[in-house]
Amino acid sequence: MALKKKPVTGMKDILPKEMAIREYVQAQIRETYKSFGFSSIETPCVEHIENLSSKQGGENEKLIFKILKRGEKLKIDEAKSQEDLVDGGLRYDLTLPLSRYFSNNSSVLSQPFKALQMGNVWRADRPQRGRFRQFMQCDIDILGEASVLAEIDLILAMTTLLGKLGFKNYSIRINDRRMLKAMASYSGFSADIFDTVFIILDKMDKIGLEGVRKELLEEGIEEEKIDKYLALYEEVTNDLSGISYLKGKLGDFLSQEVSTGLETIISSVLDAGNENFNIIFDPTLVRGMSYYTGPIFEISMDEFGGSVGGGGRYDEMIGKFTGMDIPACGFSVGFERIVMLLMESGFEVPDEGEKIAYLADKKLSKDELLEVLKLASKERANGKCISVVTMNKNKKFQKQQLSEAGYTEFKEFFPQ
Amino acid sequence: MALKKKPVTGMKDILPKEMAIREYVQAQIRETYKSFGFSSIETPCVEHIENLSSKQGGENEKLIFKILKRGEKLKIDEAKSQEDLVDGGLRYDLTLPLSRYFSNNSSVLSQPFKALQMGNVWRADRPQRGRFRQFMQCDIDILGEASVLAEIDLILAMTTLLGKLGFKNYSIRINDRRMLKAMASYSGFSADIFDTVFIILDKMDKIGLEGVRKELLEEGIEEEKIDKYLALYEEVTNDLSGISYLKGKLGDFLSQEVSTGLETIISSVLDAGNENFNIIFDPTLVRGMSYYTGPIFEISMDEFGGSVGGGGRYDEMIGKFTGMDIPACGFSVGFERIVMLLMESGFEVPDEGEKIAYLADKKLSKDELLEVLKLASKERANGKCISVVTMNKNKKFQKQQLSEAGYTEFKEFFPQ
Repeated sequence: MALKKKPVTGMKDILPKEMAIREYVQAQIRETYKSFGFSSIETPCVEHIENLSSKQGGENEKLIFKILKRGEKLKIDEAKSQEDLVDGGLRYDLTLPLSRYFSNNSSVLSQPFKALQMGNVWRADRPQRGRFRQFMQCDIDILGEASVLAEIDLILAMTTLLGKLGFKNYSIRINDRRMLKAMASYSGFSADIFDTVFIILDKMDKIGLEGVRKELLEEGIEEEKIDKYLALYEEVTNDLSGISYLKGKLGDFLSQEVSTGLETIISSVLDAGNENFNIIFDPTLVRGMSYYTGPIFEISMDEFGGSVGGGGRYDEMIGKFTGMDIPACGFSVGFERIVMLLMESGFEVPDEGEKIAYLADKKLSKDELLEVLKLASKERANGKCISVVTMNKNKKFQKQQLSEAGYTEFKEFFPQ
Repeated sequence: MALKKKPVTGMKDILPKEMAIREYVQAQIRETYKSFGFSSIETPCVEHIENLSSKQGGENEKLIFKILKRGEKLKIDEAKSQEDLVDGGLRYDLTLPLSRYFSNNSSVLSQPFKALQMGNVWRADRPQRGRFRQFMQCDIDILGEASVLAEIDLILAMTTLLGKLGFKNYSIRINDRRMLKAMASYSGFSADIFDTVFIILDKMDKIGLEGVRKELLEEGIEEEKIDKYLALYEEVTNDLSGISYLKGKLGDFLSQEVSTGLETIISSVLDAGNENFNIIFDPTLVRGMSYYTGPIFEISMDEFGGSVGGGGRYDEMIGKFTGMDIPACGFSVGFERIVMLLMESGFEVPDEGEKIAYLADKKLSKDELLEVLKLASKERANGKCISVVTMNKNKKFQKQQLSEAGYTEFKEFFPQ
């Protein structure tokens, strides 16, 4: 039986052209983030199924690729459910594994610990255009830093990176989980319906204020409270004065730490950043993951019409491993989307030196071949890329293929 | 319930110090191999279970991590065997996925195609010291090149790499699958016992000629044939004259293509290479994988006492996908072993620029913090790595940790 040529459903083979762009972006990420003091680390792609299923990953937990137990542990006859068959899974993000990593290694890591991770994650999503079941995530996280210095550091590192990659005119939207709660409490909503309210609020950019009102009413929430809630959203502005407005309105519902934190982040990023982006206060920003506890942020890029990265503070996740909470804050850049945008814009990786193909005739003698190899070696020592290949019958087609692969010069070698 | 802090059995968390060495080695690999004309590509980590179980992977197939079917396809009640539950697995090497990749994409790849792959593979081996269930493989392969130019190119690329990494005094051992068969046929062994004979021959370096004789006898092979076989091994030398000797002895059992191929590879590598290594003809070299069809080679390093890489020609594997054989030859460098050797030798990654830590007192005002951030940004623009962190209570310990992480200078910022 012939073997299967296509990749498994929802995953892809990466061709040399895309790969060159991916490696370029990865090099930029590494260089930029390291200049901010982040250190590369790596966790295994396989995680304990107990950790993956611990409700830290929201909806993504449903999408885990599960790995079968092996050998004597695998008892298919006795198995009642999946749990009896499985003991690991492929990680669906880099945040949960990082929290485990930090818990496991904190004694040998400097504090605060600034981690850089680039690695694949897997989600068994319904396959659709531009969305794959294996994709690269690039995260930076700061563990052990309680102040908003962490948020500022993450955002500046990321805007510096996007600047190097040539992106302009994007927005950083910022909010705080505690601001969401303060606004809901002020309006009289009880804490047990917060999640329902926030899921609806999250759709504001799509369904508008009236759409949100309608859906909240459909949930059976009192109209009076809804009016009070939405009046805040009608009045608030997307800048520092928006925060001042909410401080005045919400009073004791909003702690000063939250408002001052947001103000410090916004003004520091505006002043220390560059002019390629703006940062806006967006009180409708929710972000799905339940583990966020403080400031949350997201990058919107007009060219893309969606988010190309985001993150936030998750001060309680490491406590699930160690019993002791450690302040933590992370930012994930949308690597696959950035690569896609660069590909679509016809981006060319900056010159990597001259690429020359040596086409060696099949009939070269051993000594003649040796001369070709020595010449290649000499040219490589001068920084050139030399590929020595056997000359094909269809030389014209071969050269055309090599040109497409970036070779600009050809040398042909025939027997004397 | 607290979550699990340790990584899954047999896999490891990679700490910043090791990670810096890994990234350095990877950068050297990429730079060197690209100068020989290899292009980076990537295949998914998950492969079709049918492909993984196709007997291309020898013993490694027993070690596959299998992935559970999902949703409606998973019928635990009806499952009789593993096959009913599984539809994918983690790749155990990069050669089989590359063959699938080439079959799937050959119309858009230049011929010959020179591929560079760096990626993790997974094998559920019994955990033991220095051997992990997830590890990085770095392979170069040349597809569509029938001549020994492929073997020479692969070996020179690899010796250039090892030179850059500072390795010396290693040996490249080379043989040919067809040479093994010729020697066995000449001795009168029938083809159906070749595999048994080669498994025993492979132990020559451990059990010696007498050990091999004993085990062959135990298999019930006639003493006369064994004597004839082992006489060859007593006479043959590990150089070009060893090949001449076998040409004379084996006569028509050995095709001229095989002996000339080995001679060309050995003499070209000796002449075009550098003086850090020697290349020897080793007629006891077997290499486990059944897919090899021609020259095979392995690197032995005295410091390590074992193989740090190897490869060979596998002209028939792509035919399993397409029905049409394509010449193919690959080389895999033992990435994890090289990293381990560098770690053990106290290797330090060459200077990456000055690393300075800014310790910011917690009580800095918003404006003072902004000044710190601006200064950091200015210094980064001058190529320095600046990490801005909050000053811990135990400043001395914090500085000590930062020193260990490579920071050589500290600046402290207090409120005015």
